[in-house]
Amino acid sequence: MKQPPSGMTEECGVAGAVAPGRQAARAVFFGLFALQHRGQEAAGIASSDGRAAYIHKGLGRVAQVFDEDNLGPLLGELAIGHNRYSTTGATQLRNAQPHLVETALGPLAVAHNGNLTNARRLRRELLEAGIGFSSGSDTEVMLRLLALPAEGEAAGDPWLTRMRRLMERAEGAYSLVVLTREAVYALRDPWGFRPLAVGALEGGGFAVASESSALATMGAGFDFEVEPGSAVRLDREGYTVHRLVEPQKRALCVFEFVYFARPDTLLDGQEVHAVRRRLGAELAREAPAEADVVVGVPDSATAHALGYAEAAGLPYAEGLIKNRYIGRTFIEPDDALRKSGVRLKYTPLASVLAGRRVVLVDDSIVRGNTAGPLVRLLRSAGAREVHLRVASPPVRHPCFMGLDMATHEELIAHNLDVAKIREHVGADSLAYLSHAGMMRAVGGGRGFCDACFTGRYPVTLEAGPAGADALVGEG
Amino acid sequence: MKQPPSGMTEECGVAGAVAPGRQAARAVFFGLFALQHRGQEAAGIASSDGRAAYIHKGLGRVAQVFDEDNLGPLLGELAIGHNRYSTTGATQLRNAQPHLVETALGPLAVAHNGNLTNARRLRRELLEAGIGFSSGSDTEVMLRLLALPAEGEAAGDPWLTRMRRLMERAEGAYSLVVLTREAVYALRDPWGFRPLAVGALEGGGFAVASESSALATMGAGFDFEVEPGSAVRLDREGYTVHRLVEPQKRALCVFEFVYFARPDTLLDGQEVHAVRRRLGAELAREAPAEADVVVGVPDSATAHALGYAEAAGLPYAEGLIKNRYIGRTFIEPDDALRKSGVRLKYTPLASVLAGRRVVLVDDSIVRGNTAGPLVRLLRSAGAREVHLRVASPPVRHPCFMGLDMATHEELIAHNLDVAKIREHVGADSLAYLSHAGMMRAVGGGRGFCDACFTGRYPVTLEAGPAGADALVGEG
Amino acid sequence: MKQPPSGMTEECGVAGAVAPGRQAARAVFFGLFALQHRGQEAAGIASSDGRAAYIHKGLGRVAQVFDEDNLGPLLGELAIGHNRYSTTGATQLRNAQPHLVETALGPLAVAHNGNLTNARRLRRELLEAGIGFSSGSDTEVMLRLLALPAEGEAAGDPWLTRMRRLMERAEGAYSLVVLTREAVYALRDPWGFRPLAVGALEGGGFAVASESSALATMGAGFDFEVEPGSAVRLDREGYTVHRLVEPQKRALCVFEFVYFARPDTLLDGQEVHAVRRRLGAELAREAPAEADVVVGVPDSATAHALGYAEAAGLPYAEGLIKNRYIGRTFIEPDDALRKSGVRLKYTPLASVLAGRRVVLVDDSIVRGNTAGPLVRLLRSAGAREVHLRVASPPVRHPCFMGLDMATHEELIAHNLDVAKIREHVGADSLAYLSHAGMMRAVGGGRGFCDACFTGRYPVTLEAGPAGADALVGEG
Amino acid sequence: MKQPPSGMTEECGVAGAVAPGRQAARAVFFGLFALQHRGQEAAGIASSDGRAAYIHKGLGRVAQVFDEDNLGPLLGELAIGHNRYSTTGATQLRNAQPHLVETALGPLAVAHNGNLTNARRLRRELLEAGIGFSSGSDTEVMLRLLALPAEGEAAGDPWLTRMRRLMERAEGAYSLVVLTREAVYALRDPWGFRPLAVGALEGGGFAVASESSALATMGAGFDFEVEPGSAVRLDREGYTVHRLVEPQKRALCVFEFVYFARPDTLLDGQEVHAVRRRLGAELAREAPAEADVVVGVPDSATAHALGYAEAAGLPYAEGLIKNRYIGRTFIEPDDALRKSGVRLKYTPLASVLAGRRVVLVDDSIVRGNTAGPLVRLLRSAGAREVHLRVASPPVRHPCFMGLDMATHEELIAHNLDVAKIREHVGADSLAYLSHAGMMRAVGGGRGFCDACFTGRYPVTLEAGPAGADALVGEG
Repeated sequence: MKQPPSGMTEECGVAGAVAPGRQAARAVFFGLFALQHRGQEAAGIASSDGRAAYIHKGLGRVAQVFDEDNLGPLLGELAIGHNRYSTTGATQLRNAQPHLVETALGPLAVAHNGNLTNARRLRRELLEAGIGFSSGSDTEVMLRLLALPAEGEAAGDPWLTRMRRLMERAEGAYSLVVLTREAVYALRDPWGFRPLAVGALEGGGFAVASESSALATMGAGFDFEVEPGSAVRLDREGYTVHRLVEPQKRALCVFEFVYFARPDTLLDGQEVHAVRRRLGAELAREAPAEADVVVGVPDSATAHALGYAEAAGLPYAEGLIKNRYIGRTFIEPDDALRKSGVRLKYTPLASVLAGRRVVLVDDSIVRGNTAGPLVRLLRSAGAREVHLRVASPPVRHPCFMGLDMATHEELIAHNLDVAKIREHVGADSLAYLSHAGMMRAVGGGRGFCDACFTGRYPVTLEAGPAGADALVGEG
Repeated sequence: MKQPPSGMTEECGVAGAVAPGRQAARAVFFGLFALQHRGQEAAGIASSDGRAAYIHKGLGRVAQVFDEDNLGPLLGELAIGHNRYSTTGATQLRNAQPHLVETALGPLAVAHNGNLTNARRLRRELLEAGIGFSSGSDTEVMLRLLALPAEGEAAGDPWLTRMRRLMERAEGAYSLVVLTREAVYALRDPWGFRPLAVGALEGGGFAVASESSALATMGAGFDFEVEPGSAVRLDREGYTVHRLVEPQKRALCVFEFVYFARPDTLLDGQEVHAVRRRLGAELAREAPAEADVVVGVPDSATAHALGYAEAAGLPYAEGLIKNRYIGRTFIEPDDALRKSGVRLKYTPLASVLAGRRVVLVDDSIVRGNTAGPLVRLLRSAGAREVHLRVASPPVRHPCFMGLDMATHEELIAHNLDVAKIREHVGADSLAYLSHAGMMRAVGGGRGFCDACFTGRYPVTLEAGPAGADALVGEG
Repeated sequence: MKQPPSGMTEECGVAGAVAPGRQAARAVFFGLFALQHRGQEAAGIASSDGRAAYIHKGLGRVAQVFDEDNLGPLLGELAIGHNRYSTTGATQLRNAQPHLVETALGPLAVAHNGNLTNARRLRRELLEAGIGFSSGSDTEVMLRLLALPAEGEAAGDPWLTRMRRLMERAEGAYSLVVLTREAVYALRDPWGFRPLAVGALEGGGFAVASESSALATMGAGFDFEVEPGSAVRLDREGYTVHRLVEPQKRALCVFEFVYFARPDTLLDGQEVHAVRRRLGAELAREAPAEADVVVGVPDSATAHALGYAEAAGLPYAEGLIKNRYIGRTFIEPDDALRKSGVRLKYTPLASVLAGRRVVLVDDSIVRGNTAGPLVRLLRSAGAREVHLRVASPPVRHPCFMGLDMATHEELIAHNLDVAKIREHVGADSLAYLSHAGMMRAVGGGRGFCDACFTGRYPVTLEAGPAGADALVGEG
Repeated sequence: MKQPPSGMTEECGVAGAVAPGRQAARAVFFGLFALQHRGQEAAGIASSDGRAAYIHKGLGRVAQVFDEDNLGPLLGELAIGHNRYSTTGATQLRNAQPHLVETALGPLAVAHNGNLTNARRLRRELLEAGIGFSSGSDTEVMLRLLALPAEGEAAGDPWLTRMRRLMERAEGAYSLVVLTREAVYALRDPWGFRPLAVGALEGGGFAVASESSALATMGAGFDFEVEPGSAVRLDREGYTVHRLVEPQKRALCVFEFVYFARPDTLLDGQEVHAVRRRLGAELAREAPAEADVVVGVPDSATAHALGYAEAAGLPYAEGLIKNRYIGRTFIEPDDALRKSGVRLKYTPLASVLAGRRVVLVDDSIVRGNTAGPLVRLLRSAGAREVHLRVASPPVRHPCFMGLDMATHEELIAHNLDVAKIREHVGADSLAYLSHAGMMRAVGGGRGFCDACFTGRYPVTLEAGPAGADALVGEG
């Protein structure tokens, strides 16, 4: 299969606001704060007061990047922002978003969640037209495309004409927020891979965010999800919805339900937490276990474990504690310390585990390098048996639509069958949820992208070697 | 009642290690990492290689304070460290620990968890003897006292002679680790207010830490708790235990069980998590509720809620999600944003709460300013009734033994009776666990300090105004 | 007169190197170090190893911006660099140079000394073609123009074709260094406003720098100055000179001799220090004074004062000491301290001044706000008379060719005649050097820009309001 | 000869102020700014408002260490400050001054210029009395001694009683400023090694500074130098002078005249600049040269060179330019660049040097590693002959009174005779000023310490190995 550059793959969160009479950047800050789980490596906000555009970006979490000294100068009633996640080493400020340029129509800033699958081709065309790039990101590709005048843009809002052209040309996943001098726009690709929600701000104006749950933190209600192929224009007067291209067959990322989105987010009208309990319940029906207690991997699989326990009629218990206060540390343990490694993050509770047959529920297994240590940890606290249950099917294919999972080679289920994985992690038994079971739990409604489980990608992937960023450095 | 200076009250974590042939500071770093819940405002490590002493301290969490560049130079096989917590504004580097001085017997460093109740008197005596102080902390009082030659110290280990004198003179709570040129010492006050545990390091040597659970992260087993009134000397040869003064009536802080210690810590032989489930179960028996579901305040009251649910025969559910990625932010919301405040930290789940009668279990209520917003949050997600259950008695008295709770005036149960508190927080019903119930759950074994519930302090408190730190500044 | 945006006016230093088998960025660092007097607000270096381009920029002096950790990664045998000076508040990283983009022909970086007088028009044209700008600088205008394909570029080096187009379209002052994947180019505008010199590196390869004196610090000799209207291409094979357009009437900035360039720089074959002594000697002949001693304003007017003293037959003495160790301070004096202001920078010596009639020589007077305090300072140390002599004519017109002097309104000689200026500064007498005298001293050779003295600008200036940078912020 | 620890040797600047109704720390800041030449490695200020003491210290120059945010909180009408210089690696914040402690009499802070020669003995006595030390500095020795109650202190100002005891016990060089709750004190050792001057502040109050010239920058006049063996107490009422012990034979450091002090400072009533011209003139009489031009090593030997030229009847010229904008850089040149090393700091001017016989005047030669490169630099610019003249005698002995010159082994004149030194530096001739000539120039008045030239130390030096600081680290 053709393989796009994994270095360009990112999970991200975006937010935007139009706040008449108030500082929009402040609302956007709280939106990014609520979307922190979608990216902790960099954050940025761009704003406009109708005269100039303002921007601040930095590496780290949003609460580290922003303080009153740098948020204060982000003037204006319009703003957009971005949280960036990347598992690649490229944590450069140069790749942080939003990207901002000045154009003949005034400032233009873009923040992006997703991944274009034809970014290399579009970039090449723009380069050959004489347009220089400041970064290697597909976000800049969309920014440069939006900066180019389009035929017929004279009539009406030229930005919408350009956005239609963008949607006709770009393939892959993109939930975008765009800032111009006069408005904030929210765009969602024709497949609807990534979520994007809009709501009215208390005090007037409108907000947009990757997840509906973040709207509340921004002081907004939740009014609707942006439709695939549409752009929503937010300005001081209100909002207007523009269907720019025909939607494609719906392909909402099913992994948002399994793991990625916040439990309180509504996707296609369903609460993510409730879906997760159903995933656990389906799993209990498909793969019961003779056991005494059900334990989830905190915090991401707690809901799945509760659902499993309930459906299985087994007691649920906290058998693993996640250390709340640790962050990343760059201190290397010595040999004697190395053995205690996983205990930095998780602690087993002997009072729950000792002498018991334990069902350990996880939401998914991707690379497979935490399951083994967790099984050993449970046994070290006295668990008699450990039955590992995974509330989604085996992940056998990489994501090219914006989730930075892994390459084929890194996916344990690409390399090993279930029996071998069980052996590898050392569990007494192992079962995954079936694809059909997952679809029952998510409520098959409007169509999902499940390519990481099935290899059936909704869009064609670009061929060729990875187009590495040829510009390196900060400043 | 006489009131000691609240500015001196601190919760803290301490650790120490003797690691023959290895860098002790590295083990201490991981110990502090595992004790991060006991203090996030400052961290420090002092070490000794037999020739010189080395120190690094900084503001922030231990993973922020230390990197390989500053940990590497902390040479030697002996080290101690400290995590500091303070709710006062005095987050000065000057008050960070360990405190280190050179003495005629070589370097001396001290790290302290607890609070002396006669610190002002001891400090005054030392000042009048011509000894200058660099900080306002009671830790420096103990350091300066240890630096003074003691009668009869010529025979044997002079530090033990001085430590006996310290124990004869100091009143209040102190679990100390002390670093000298030749040894690390672990001391615990005669009442045993704060925990302190010792274990053998894999690879040789010994470790000490505030909580038994941190020993594993240091690569050590858990051998014993330091006895009240005793000092344990750890050196390259092994350890020796020295009972320096007669223990007083045992007064282990019961709040360590209720809230403060890690769930996997063993205190007086009991796993903290198991005690918390029993606290919840006792509460269910004492104060049942007509309800559909039991929800805990995450993460501290999850165990209590599970215990309540099990004993009450009600389903347990995740009704509140705690945002994992947020830290403190110094960005001020505007008026429109202010209403959404509590949603930064907690999110309610409609699928769990809507239309239900909910038991909300919390571990304790101190100031009482989160319970009200939480009750309202549950109702906003559709909870039909909210019955608040608190798994410890009303906190009516401040702690002067090292837990920085609050002053009398700030304690809601000092000011209001239970009916009024219920009204204040807006719950449909409210019940606290009884003192007897709490004692049953903790297993009344060897004696506790329960002064915050009863006002019966095990030691006499100093009179007089607070002795504010008269030295201000960094560097 | 039409007035271009003063915010775009900058003094700067540029350097470049091709160093086969070595790290070119290292040589460029030392070149910037030697050109530090041309800009202390920001510094940056971009390099290329034939595969990727690397960049690091920062605010502050070059020795503050660079350390081994950020210089080391600037790989490759080709590099260019920039020192930036700006008296405007816009010390943003966003305006620091070099500017770097990726193009269809590989990386392109530009560093610029000078100021385009038709930048606004060129920028507008590019914006309307759909090219977005990341900064408000005229350097980016040139960068974007170079990124655009040119007719006929297929034959030969396409960059030279584009540089010819740039020279045909750009007006004003620009000494550029340009980095591509294969070469470093040095360009000088057709008037030759700003200097630019080339020399062979010891160890092989070639270097380019704003001033000949910097070549030695880069480990290079001084071979030639780049001719106006020409580009010199430096690559691993050697160098080639390309006359791209016909030179205009020569217009080397005469202020480089008066004040700006280093004393050891050769401009048009003349050592700047020697010219400065001649400026002082001409001044002594034109405007003698009955005096006991000649004192220069250190350090810039020491040479002029020595020349004056020698020609006048008067003793030269150090009457003012410049504090070597001070930098800028942002501490505000209180009222009692405010009077002592100028003494932070200069100190008068009573042993030289007391009772004497003093000739105080300065190189030029621009705004006129230091001359008065200096005259008072001399008197405070006992000077009986102070005769101020200025070794250049009155500055009556702003510079639009890259020297950030001042606006018309700020120029004291635009507002006051010589008699009034004398009165304003409180000198016993005041004389400026005549224009003819200055021309004799600089040796009228090949033609100068003397617009700041005469108002005769060699190029047409753009009309219209200042085009302020509409993008604000870092990151 | 016995050799005290060179690690304790420091050159420093001190300042203090009592400023009724104003912020004294602000005046002290400007005093430190004016004393920046006496130490650029660390700076600090301590202040007192009668209730609490405040302090801020940091590494670097005073303008880097202080900004309005950290200066503002240094409240109160009393303050002292310190600039620290050290050529040892020990640029630790822990050794920065002032040192501040709380005592039974309130806060006590000390800043020190000089070096105790019996610090080790005093420190040992205090350690054995049970007093712990936080640093390895002799300043802390004096601080701890001042903190100890003294006999008879009940009557009158106890601090003066303690200062008398200090003067009776301490040997060596110490110009101290001391801050207490009520007053600032200025102390000078009985030999008067280091300068210390007092003056009245405009706006009321008094200032003290290491050099008279700094008083003007503090907004003060210059009233008198503190007498050896005396303390001056400055408080809100005015000042009082206290002769605490009998002065010893006067031993003002002659090197302050030769090199160290500011040119505009008055020492024993003589302007330093005028003395330096006389040093040059004496040198011209003792060691004339057949030459065309006289050049000084900038900036320190410009005055000496002017004096030489005048006395010799030779023209003075700027033949070497010192790069004004460079700071230290940590970038390593590669081999091709290494040759150009000295050109980073100095530039030769061919128009002055080419074909000439040059007298190069330097103020002193200590280690002898710059003279050779300078001679070669002059020759590289065409100098036909280079005659090196040194305006002080050969430095053959280390300083133990506070100037961090070098050890015996590092002093070139300790190892080589004048003929060998000439050969080493490659000059055509070399001559030093004689001791008698130096004494004529400084005007033999009241007695000097000239031990670095003669080896006759005014005080006995401690024997034994260097007492290295056993406490390492920051925070």
